Amino acid sequence: MSRRIGILTSGGDCAGLNAVIRAAALRAHHGYGWTTIGIGRGTLGLLERPVEAVTLDPARLDSSLARQGGTFLGSTNRGDPFAYPMPDGSLKDRSGEMVEGLKQLRLDGLIGVGGDGSLDILRRLLAPSGVPFVGVPKTIDNDVGQTERAVGYSTAVAIATEALDRLQPTGASHERVMVLEVMGRDAGHIAIAAGIAGGADVVLIPEVRWSVDRVVGHIARLRAEGRTSALVVVAEAAGQSDEAVDEAADAAADAPDHGVGEWLAKRLAKATGAEARATVLGHVQRGAMPTAEDRLLASALGVRAVDVLADGKGDRMVAWWNRQVIDVPLEKVVGRSRTVDPGGALIRTARALGICLGDAI
Amino acid sequence: MSRRIGILTSGGDCAGLNAVIRAAALRAHHGYGWTTIGIGRGTLGLLERPVEAVTLDPARLDSSLARQGGTFLGSTNRGDPFAYPMPDGSLKDRSGEMVEGLKQLRLDGLIGVGGDGSLDILRRLLAPSGVPFVGVPKTIDNDVGQTERAVGYSTAVAIATEALDRLQPTGASHERVMVLEVMGRDAGHIAIAAGIAGGADVVLIPEVRWSVDRVVGHIARLRAEGRTSALVVVAEAAGQSDEAVDEAADAAADAPDHGVGEWLAKRLAKATGAEARATVLGHVQRGAMPTAEDRLLASALGVRAVDVLADGKGDRMVAWWNRQVIDVPLEKVVGRSRTVDPGGALIRTARALGICLGDAI
Amino acid sequence: MSRRIGILTSGGDCAGLNAVIRAAALRAHHGYGWTTIGIGRGTLGLLERPVEAVTLDPARLDSSLARQGGTFLGSTNRGDPFAYPMPDGSLKDRSGEMVEGLKQLRLDGLIGVGGDGSLDILRRLLAPSGVPFVGVPKTIDNDVGQTERAVGYSTAVAIATEALDRLQPTGASHERVMVLEVMGRDAGHIAIAAGIAGGADVVLIPEVRWSVDRVVGHIARLRAEGRTSALVVVAEAAGQSDEAVDEAADAAADAPDHGVGEWLAKRLAKATGAEARATVLGHVQRGAMPTAEDRLLASALGVRAVDVLADGKGDRMVAWWNRQVIDVPLEKVVGRSRTVDPGGALIRTARALGICLGDAI
Amino acid sequence: MSRRIGILTSGGDCAGLNAVIRAAALRAHHGYGWTTIGIGRGTLGLLERPVEAVTLDPARLDSSLARQGGTFLGSTNRGDPFAYPMPDGSLKDRSGEMVEGLKQLRLDGLIGVGGDGSLDILRRLLAPSGVPFVGVPKTIDNDVGQTERAVGYSTAVAIATEALDRLQPTGASHERVMVLEVMGRDAGHIAIAAGIAGGADVVLIPEVRWSVDRVVGHIARLRAEGRTSALVVVAEAAGQSDEAVDEAADAAADAPDHGVGEWLAKRLAKATGAEARATVLGHVQRGAMPTAEDRLLASALGVRAVDVLADGKGDRMVAWWNRQVIDVPLEKVVGRSRTVDPGGALIRTARALGICLGDAI
Repeated sequence: MSRRIGILTSGGDCAGLNAVIRAAALRAHHGYGWTTIGIGRGTLGLLERPVEAVTLDPARLDSSLARQGGTFLGSTNRGDPFAYPMPDGSLKDRSGEMVEGLKQLRLDGLIGVGGDGSLDILRRLLAPSGVPFVGVPKTIDNDVGQTERAVGYSTAVAIATEALDRLQPTGASHERVMVLEVMGRDAGHIAIAAGIAGGADVVLIPEVRWSVDRVVGHIARLRAEGRTSALVVVAEAAGQSDEAVDEAADAAADAPDHGVGEWLAKRLAKATGAEARATVLGHVQRGAMPTAEDRLLASALGVRAVDVLADGKGDRMVAWWNRQVIDVPLEKVVGRSRTVDPGGALIRTARALGICLGDAI
Repeated sequence: MSRRIGILTSGGDCAGLNAVIRAAALRAHHGYGWTTIGIGRGTLGLLERPVEAVTLDPARLDSSLARQGGTFLGSTNRGDPFAYPMPDGSLKDRSGEMVEGLKQLRLDGLIGVGGDGSLDILRRLLAPSGVPFVGVPKTIDNDVGQTERAVGYSTAVAIATEALDRLQPTGASHERVMVLEVMGRDAGHIAIAAGIAGGADVVLIPEVRWSVDRVVGHIARLRAEGRTSALVVVAEAAGQSDEAVDEAADAAADAPDHGVGEWLAKRLAKATGAEARATVLGHVQRGAMPTAEDRLLASALGVRAVDVLADGKGDRMVAWWNRQVIDVPLEKVVGRSRTVDPGGALIRTARALGICLGDAI
Repeated sequence: MSRRIGILTSGGDCAGLNAVIRAAALRAHHGYGWTTIGIGRGTLGLLERPVEAVTLDPARLDSSLARQGGTFLGSTNRGDPFAYPMPDGSLKDRSGEMVEGLKQLRLDGLIGVGGDGSLDILRRLLAPSGVPFVGVPKTIDNDVGQTERAVGYSTAVAIATEALDRLQPTGASHERVMVLEVMGRDAGHIAIAAGIAGGADVVLIPEVRWSVDRVVGHIARLRAEGRTSALVVVAEAAGQSDEAVDEAADAAADAPDHGVGEWLAKRLAKATGAEARATVLGHVQRGAMPTAEDRLLASALGVRAVDVLADGKGDRMVAWWNRQVIDVPLEKVVGRSRTVDPGGALIRTARALGICLGDAI
Repeated sequence: MSRRIGILTSGGDCAGLNAVIRAAALRAHHGYGWTTIGIGRGTLGLLERPVEAVTLDPARLDSSLARQGGTFLGSTNRGDPFAYPMPDGSLKDRSGEMVEGLKQLRLDGLIGVGGDGSLDILRRLLAPSGVPFVGVPKTIDNDVGQTERAVGYSTAVAIATEALDRLQPTGASHERVMVLEVMGRDAGHIAIAAGIAGGADVVLIPEVRWSVDRVVGHIARLRAEGRTSALVVVAEAAGQSDEAVDEAADAAADAPDHGVGEWLAKRLAKATGAEARATVLGHVQRGAMPTAEDRLLASALGVRAVDVLADGKGDRMVAWWNRQVIDVPLEKVVGRSRTVDPGGALIRTARALGICLGDAI
C-alpha cells in the first residue's frame, strides 16, 4: 500500500541538504511508490495551519537541485518546540501543536536532517506521535557521533582550504602572519583538516590546550629557518574553551569580544613584531555548492533513510561507516558530540608534518 | 645594445602581479634581448646592501607562475621612502638611499606595478635618478584613473560575487538578511559590480549618500512582495565617508568600531526584526588565483610597459582603453582617484534592476 | 499604459542567458510596469498552439537564476523559420506560422538573445509583423560585430583557461605536448585569449595562416632552451579554413576526420618524437556557471534592451562599447562576423610574449 | 644516525602527488632528521649518470607546492625496467642499471608513489637491491586494493562531477542527450561516483553488463515522464570489455574507433531521435588542483610511508582504511585490481536513485 513520508531540514544550513531531500524523494518514488511531503522551515512549518508542506514531485527533482547550497524547504534554528520563544519574551511548550500538525499530514514516517541537537529535539518530539523517525546527520562541524562523516563537512573543509590557498600568497608577498578563523562550535574538525590540506603552520582547536606563547615560539622558529610568513588556522570555539584561555589574568583585559581570530592576530602581531591579519570565514562555509563527496554522501544517506522506514524501523540514524551505509540507534548519538580524536589520523598527521598545535608536545 | 630593466611590485598585493612580471620579462627577452631584474619587497629591497634583486630567467617563467596569486618578488605598503618609519618611531627621508640602491643595479629603466599612491611615490622617487619609469596600474579597487581596468579588479569582483553566490542559499534557507562587506578603500567598484553580478538587493558605496532607513524600507517592500531574505553588499569605505553616516547623533552611539558590515547587520536586525548576519570578506579578495581576464590584462600591460621603455619614453602609465593598450602621462593619473561614475553603466544598471543604493532616488 | 514584451533565446546556449532574461524582466517591471512573456525553445515555441510561453513573475527571478548556465526558456539551433526541416525531409517556409504565433501573444515588442545568425533570422522574421525587435548579442565565439563583448564569451575563455591550468602540470610531469582544442566556429577569440591567460606556447586560429612545420620548429626551440613540455591551443575552426591546411599534399591522407586537435597531436608527436595528447574541450565551455563579468554584461544589456523598446525604437542591437551600453542598427551587425584583429591587442600581446602563432613572422 | 630516503612518482600523473612528496620530506626531516632525495622522472631518472635526483629542502616545500597538480619530480609510464623499449624497437631488461643507479644514491629506503602496476614493477625492481620499499597508492581510477581510496581519485571525481554540472544546463536548454566519457581503465569508480553526485540518468561501467537497448528504453521512459534531456556517464573502459559490447552483430560495423562516448552518442541519437552530444573529459581529470580531501589523504599517506621505513619494515603499501592510516603487505595488493563492488554502496545508491546502469535489473 502506498505510504506518505515527510522530510524536513532543521538547524543551521549546510551544503548537501537538497541532495538528501532529492535522494529520499527519488528512493521513495522509484523504490516503493511512496509519496514524499516536504515540510517547510524545519519544525516551524508544523505550527502553521494548514501545515506548511509541499508534495515533492520526482519529475521536478532534477540534478540541478542537488548541486544547490542551502535547503529549498527552509530550515530554522530558532524555536525549540519544548521552549518556544513567544512574542512576549516567554518560553512555551509548543510540541503538542507540532505533533498535531504532523498528524494533519497523515505521515507514515518522518525523515529529519539535522545535527546532534536537532536530531535530539526531533526524536523527543516524535516519540509520543507514534510516527517512525529516521535522522540524517548533517553538520559542517562533523561532530555527530556514530558516523564517519556528516553531510556538509566535506564542503566546509573545501571552502576553508580554498581560503588558505588564497591567504598564503598574500602572506608570503607581505611577510605577514595570516590568521584564518573557521567555524567549529564544539569541535575542531574543519580547522585541522583544512589546516593539513591548506598547508597551515599552526592549527588551534578546542580539543588541544594551547597557549599563545607556544605559537609565538613556533613562528620564531620558522623565521629562523628563513620563512617570512605564516598561516594560522583557528577554530572559532578554540577561544571559548577553558583550555584555550591562555595563562592568565591579562587575557581578560584584552579578551576577544570579536572572535578568537582577531584577538589572536593582535596578540601575535604584538608578540612577534610581524604584521598579522585575521580573516573570519563565516557563513560562506555553509551555503557553497556541495562538493562531489558531500553530494555522494547525501545521496547515499537519503536513500538509506527511506529504506530504514521501509524496513519498519524507527528511532534510528543513518550513517557512513567503513565504506558502508548503516543505521544506528538514535539514542547512541544524541548528547554525545564527537570531537577530534587526540590519537587519530588527523592530529597525528598534523604533528608529523610539523604543524604546531600550540601545546607543549 | 642590450639593456637592463628593473621591475618591482608595490603596495597591497592582488591577483595578476606575477602575470605582469612574467609578461614584462618575456617581452624584454624575446622582443629586445634585454635582461630583467626583479627587485624584492617593493622599494624596501633597494635599502638592502647589496640590493635585494634577482635576474629573471625567461626559461623559468612558465605558465604556472602567471596563475599564482600574490607577487613572488614580494611587496610592501610600509615604508614611504620620503617618510620611512624608523625603529625609534621617527620618520626619515630615505629616498636618497633607495636611489643609490637603484644606481647600484645599473638599470636603463624601471617598471613599477602599483596603485595610485604607489605610482606617485615611485614617480617622485625616480625623478632625480634619471632612470625612465613606467607604471602598471594594479588595485582591487579599480580606482586608478585613465584606465578602464587595473590588474586585480576582475579577480576581486569574481571572489566577491562567489561569496554572494554562497550567502544567498543560506539567507534564503534561514530567512535572513545577509550582509557582505567587501574591500574598497575609497571607491565602490567591487561592491557595485559584484552586487549586480551576484544579484544583491542592496548595494552601499561611498559615492552614494545612503541611509539605513532607506535600506530598511527597501527590505520591507521586498518582504511585502513575498521575499523572505535579502542580500546586502557594502563597501568597507561606505561607512567611513561623511555621506554614509546617516542621520547623525545616534550614529555616534553605536558607531562601527568593527567595520561597517557588522554595524549595519546589527542595525538592520533591530529595525526589521529579521535575523541578520555579516560576513567580512577580507584578504581572500587579494590572494586568489587570477581570473583569465586579469591574466590577460596583466600580460597586455606588462608587455606594453617594456615597449614604452623601448620607445625611449618615461613617466608614463600603461592603460587599457577601448579595447586597446595605451600609455598616458603619469601626472594625469596620480592624485586623481577614480570613483564610481554616478551616471555610468554600473549605477544605471543597478538602479534599473531595482537594486537599492540607499539613497532617495 | 502597460505593455507586454516577449523574450526568447535562440541558437547555441552559453553562460549568461538566464541573467539577460532576468535583467530584462526586472527592468520591464520595476522601470515601466510592463509584463514580460518568455517564449519557449527559441522560435520553435511560436509554432505550438497555444504558443509555448510563460509570464515571467519578477518575484520568482531571484539571484540564483542569474548564476545558472543554459537558458531556462530553452533554445534551439534547429529550425530556420524560412526553411524548416519537415519530417519527410523537405524544407518549408514556416515564418508565417511563427508570426501568427507572435500575434497571438499580443506583444508590444520582442527581445531576442542570439548570435549573428540568429539575430539575422529574427530580424527578418519580425519585419513583416510590425513588432519592434531588439537583439542582445550572445556567443561564446565573440564574433558579433559592433560590440566589444557578447554574452558567454568571458565564461568560455575562463573555462578554456582553466583547462590549460589543468593540462600544464600533466604536460610538465610527463614531458608531453598537450593540445587543447577549443570552440570557435569562425573566429579564434577564445583560443587566443585563453592561450595568453593560460600561458600557452602555441596558439592556432583561423585568422592566421599557420603550418605544422612552424609549430614543430617552435617546439624544437623550446626544447633547446630546456623546456620539456609544451601547451598548444587550437581553435576548432583553425583546421577548416583554407589557410590552416598546411602546404603538404599528404595533409589529405591523414586529414582530420576527428577534429583538428587530435589530428594535430598526431602530427606533432610524429614530427617531434615527443608524446602528444589532445583534449577536445567541447560543450563544457557553454553550460558553465557564468563568470561575474558575463553576469554583469548580461544584466547591463538586458536592461538596455527594454529601454530601447521604451524609447520606441526597434531593429536595433544593444552593445557594450568603451565602458558604455549603447545600441546600434541591426543591419550593421548581421552578416558581418567579427574575427580576431591581426593588429589588435590580443595578437600583439601573444606575439610579444613569444607565443607561436604558426606563421612566418 | 641520519638516513637518506628516496622518493619517486611513477605512472600516469594525478592530483595530490606533490602533497605526498611534501609530506614525506617534512616527516623525514621533522620526525627523524633524515634527508629525502627526490628521483626525477620515475624510474627513468635512475638510468641517468649521474642519477637524476635532487635533495628536497624542507624549507622550500611550502604549502603552495601541495596544491599544485602533477608531480614536480616528473613521472613516466614509459619504460618498464624489465622490458625497456630501445631506439631500435627492441625490448631490453634494464633493471640492473636502475638498481645500480639506486645504489649510487646510497639510500636507506625508497618510497614509490604509483598505481597497481607501477607498485608491482617497483617492488620487483627493488627486491634484489636490499633497499626497503614502501608504496603509496595513487590512481584516479581508485582500483588499488586494500585501501579505501587512492590519491587522485577524489579530484578526478570532482572534475567529472563539475563537467556534469556544466553539461546539464546545455542538455536541458537544447533537449539533448549529453554523454560524458570519463577515465577508468579497468574500473568504473569515477563514472559511478560522479554519476551519482552529478545527477546522471545513466551510468555505464565495465563491471556491469549493459546494452544500448536498455539505455534507449530508459531514456524513452524519462521522456514519457516529461523530461526532455538526459545525462549519460560512460567509463572509457565500459566499451572495451566483452560485456559492454551489446548483443547486436552490427556493433562491429559501427564500432567505436574513437572512444565509447562518441560511439554511444551516435547510437543513442539514432535510436531515440534526440540530438546527442559526446564530451570526452580526458586529461583535465589528472592535472587539476587537488581537492582538500586528496591533499589530506596524500599528506597522511606520505607521513605514514616514512614511519613504516622508520619501523624497519619494507615491501609494504600504506593505505586508508576505516578512518585510519595503516600499512599492508604489497603482495596482497599487486595484480589484484579492485573494481566497483556490485553489492556495495555506490551501485546500490545509484540503483536506488533510479539511475539506469544499462542492465536488466
